[in-house]
Amino acid sequence: MNLYMNLARLLEDRIEQGLYRPGDRLPSVRALSTEHGVSLSTVQQAYRLLEDNGLAVPRPKSGYFVSSKTLPALPEVGRPAQRPVEISQWDQVVELVRNPPRKDIVQLGRGMPDITSPTLAPLMKSLARLSRRQDMPGLHYDTIYGTEALREQIARLMVDSGCRLTAADVVVTTGCHEALSSSVRAICEPGDIVAVDSPSFFGAMQTLKGLGMKALEIPTDPLTGISLEALELALEQWPIKVIQLTPNCNNPLGYIMPEARKQQLLTLAQRFDVAIIEDDVYGDLAYTYPRPRTIKSFDLDGRVLLCSSFSKTLAPGLRVGWVAPGRYLERVLHMKYISTGSTATQPQLAIADFVEGGHYEPHLRRMRTQYQRGRDQMTEWVRRYFPAGTRASRPQGGFMLWVELPEGFDTLRLNQMLLARGVQIAVGSIFSASGKFRNCLRMNFASRPSPAVETAVRKVGETASELLANLQTAQP
Amino acid sequence: MNLYMNLARLLEDRIEQGLYRPGDRLPSVRALSTEHGVSLSTVQQAYRLLEDNGLAVPRPKSGYFVSSKTLPALPEVGRPAQRPVEISQWDQVVELVRNPPRKDIVQLGRGMPDITSPTLAPLMKSLARLSRRQDMPGLHYDTIYGTEALREQIARLMVDSGCRLTAADVVVTTGCHEALSSSVRAICEPGDIVAVDSPSFFGAMQTLKGLGMKALEIPTDPLTGISLEALELALEQWPIKVIQLTPNCNNPLGYIMPEARKQQLLTLAQRFDVAIIEDDVYGDLAYTYPRPRTIKSFDLDGRVLLCSSFSKTLAPGLRVGWVAPGRYLERVLHMKYISTGSTATQPQLAIADFVEGGHYEPHLRRMRTQYQRGRDQMTEWVRRYFPAGTRASRPQGGFMLWVELPEGFDTLRLNQMLLARGVQIAVGSIFSASGKFRNCLRMNFASRPSPAVETAVRKVGETASELLANLQTAQP
Ligand SMILES: Cc1ncc(COP(=O)(O)O)c(C=O)c1O
Ligand SMILES: Cc1ncc(COP(=O)(O)O)c(C=O)c1O
Repeated sequence: MNLYMNLARLLEDRIEQGLYRPGDRLPSVRALSTEHGVSLSTVQQAYRLLEDNGLAVPRPKSGYFVSSKTLPALPEVGRPAQRPVEISQWDQVVELVRNPPRKDIVQLGRGMPDITSPTLAPLMKSLARLSRRQDMPGLHYDTIYGTEALREQIARLMVDSGCRLTAADVVVTTGCHEALSSSVRAICEPGDIVAVDSPSFFGAMQTLKGLGMKALEIPTDPLTGISLEALELALEQWPIKVIQLTPNCNNPLGYIMPEARKQQLLTLAQRFDVAIIEDDVYGDLAYTYPRPRTIKSFDLDGRVLLCSSFSKTLAPGLRVGWVAPGRYLERVLHMKYISTGSTATQPQLAIADFVEGGHYEPHLRRMRTQYQRGRDQMTEWVRRYFPAGTRASRPQGGFMLWVELPEGFDTLRLNQMLLARGVQIAVGSIFSASGKFRNCLRMNFASRPSPAVETAVRKVGETASELLANLQTAQP
Repeated sequence: MNLYMNLARLLEDRIEQGLYRPGDRLPSVRALSTEHGVSLSTVQQAYRLLEDNGLAVPRPKSGYFVSSKTLPALPEVGRPAQRPVEISQWDQVVELVRNPPRKDIVQLGRGMPDITSPTLAPLMKSLARLSRRQDMPGLHYDTIYGTEALREQIARLMVDSGCRLTAADVVVTTGCHEALSSSVRAICEPGDIVAVDSPSFFGAMQTLKGLGMKALEIPTDPLTGISLEALELALEQWPIKVIQLTPNCNNPLGYIMPEARKQQLLTLAQRFDVAIIEDDVYGDLAYTYPRPRTIKSFDLDGRVLLCSSFSKTLAPGLRVGWVAPGRYLERVLHMKYISTGSTATQPQLAIADFVEGGHYEPHLRRMRTQYQRGRDQMTEWVRRYFPAGTRASRPQGGFMLWVELPEGFDTLRLNQMLLARGVQIAVGSIFSASGKFRNCLRMNFASRPSPAVETAVRKVGETASELLANLQTAQP
């Protein structure tokens, strides 16, 4: 961990222990610098981290104060990886993706963005316009690379993440799913070991399962991401082929890995000569501006395969994703060819139109603001309605909250009870290769806060309390 | 081979040897029945086969006559399979799918249907209408199975192929590509052996390559399909996991495998307990009505995975395909999930609309007629412009002609020369796992015959003649 992260953690502990209380003034930058023997800028970095995490609030000319809202404590860091495992949990995942959403159930479980924003209207217009064109461009086979106009826009957008790409570096895919599976298959053989952040997006893990890989789950800090220490140890012990992770606005934890740690991770990958599959699907939805850098942006020898899509920023039904596969371009192309041949043409053309027309940035701005509010509101509801001792993530982007209930709690059981009460959550165990995180769950705060959503979250909290009471009587 | 097929082949030989000449009256049904000791209906079946292949013409009340157009001889049947091979040819395939079509090149090489028919207008209208709907159904994640409304229509359409399916038996995929690769992955492990018809669609073969399978190429008759005799021998000799073939309106040969042979193939598969991946992507484009049955329609124990798409019947840019995976449903679902998660929503909804609205059948009728005319015209051009001794397939559906030049001819070289002259063809070698069929090529006759297409075909023929003259001087 870095100096500033250490300091931030220390201050956070003091806040959690009640040493500094909500509304209190925090020590000045100068005082902390003297006290801990670190530079002023290190202290400032630490305070900015606390600010991003909603713990400290700056007041002009008077320094930092403890946020007057108390936040639930952070989830605990998982235990160190034991060994590579076969991936299970497919049955639970299929439960989540098998059925169309029911109108009578509030879906807190799925990774669905809000698609009702008026800033999406130009996209619908493009789609309609394309359908009226005489030459029917949407009906033609696309090339294996994807539509040139779209790849140019993607390369342009990725400048904000620090990447210098051209259209020729980008391959369009059918969603980020195809980007991920084509990347894994481009590098690995069945039986190979892939190191993953843990908890981790279940789709990426099921991909490993489907392709016959083993997952080595690396403990992950809810604020700073995958543990580099544990990862280094794992790299020394096991013949890892690739590191697969979501460093920006992580799903499910919501953290943004600090820049320095991204660079350290890359250095590790170089030292052990492994590839990195970087999933950036929520990267453009960071609450801070400019958006965070990708690991790819530091990559000089093409070992990072950057995977993303417009599913979370625009809409998932379009199924337009992409990958910048670095030195693995030719293999990835082959894998994409056999998986779908090409991606649906019309959605690609419509997105290219939308981005080129300057509609993407305003849309993002609006969504980022909405999602940040959603985070604050959802966190507040969890604090209010969930049993004492509930821990929760502090997302710095995206629209997912990770909630941890006490050890021994069973969110599978919770989900079953909730379905009867008209609410659906994502159970924690699907975010682990081996069914860990059974006491955790993930909730979606993409839609604008409403009484219906509040009621749903309250039901989750109340049902959890009931279950917890049973659990505690059962364990005297 | 069946009795009637034997008889048809015998009559065909006699026509080709000039015993019966164009315009001649052929022996009466009764006479042949007596001569060969077969039933009247067998002779009638034989004549119908000759008729389908354009060799015989019925005249009311006066029997059958030799068609007055002489047709090029049929391509030769490939040599028996030697052993399973690793698949090569990716470089050639990527040449074909890498670049967007150039306006200055007549594309005879790609598998593109004619998308300019006015019968497609309602599809474009549906797409436009969906883009204007307030609830924006096209933006939502689809379920892993695909849109229910579309799966119902697919099940209904497949009745014509003899299949009794319900929506629950059908999984929508991103093109037939995804149907094929999900099917292979559902059954095989890397290193497994897959028996294929030969020549065979290059995409299906590259899928095997990408997944690390070996292909065992089974010789295939240009009129009746995969050799059951050679296949049986191969099944006895090798641990084949699955048979992959395109029995209806085969790509590239255009034959429709006779029903009895489909049944025999299934019996073989049962006896050796292997699965069948049946690619039916051109099945609805058979020139005869009703459309031919699928092998799947005879399948009682769920060992046939029927793969198809709307890419050839409607338009490939929509990327909507499907698979009816029989007993492999759960595995195929997992494989589809990891490959793309779900298929683009809006094209699915538009196609469901189109089929439900009764627009599919009239569209098919029109395209079938157009393609059959296209076949006759293209065949005539080949007869006229290609060097003597050129052989050609007699497609019974679809829009591809397979052309065979003398042994030793190199269509790779031909293609290079043609590109400079503004024409592109598909070279024969990509239709073989191991680069056979170098003296063959495939041409597309989907678009309405026009002077531009005629000129292009003439250029192919003339350039082939030049090359052939060189070849013959080089081999004295
Ligand atoms: C981290 C992460 N990666 C990838 C995906 C899949 O994205 P797509 O819908 O574009 O395939 C998701 C969606 O849930 C995700 O959360
Ligand atoms: C026999 C065959 N199967 C499958 C395909 C692929 O179809 P789709 O474009 O729907 O993926 C083709 C297209 O060329 C084909 O000819």
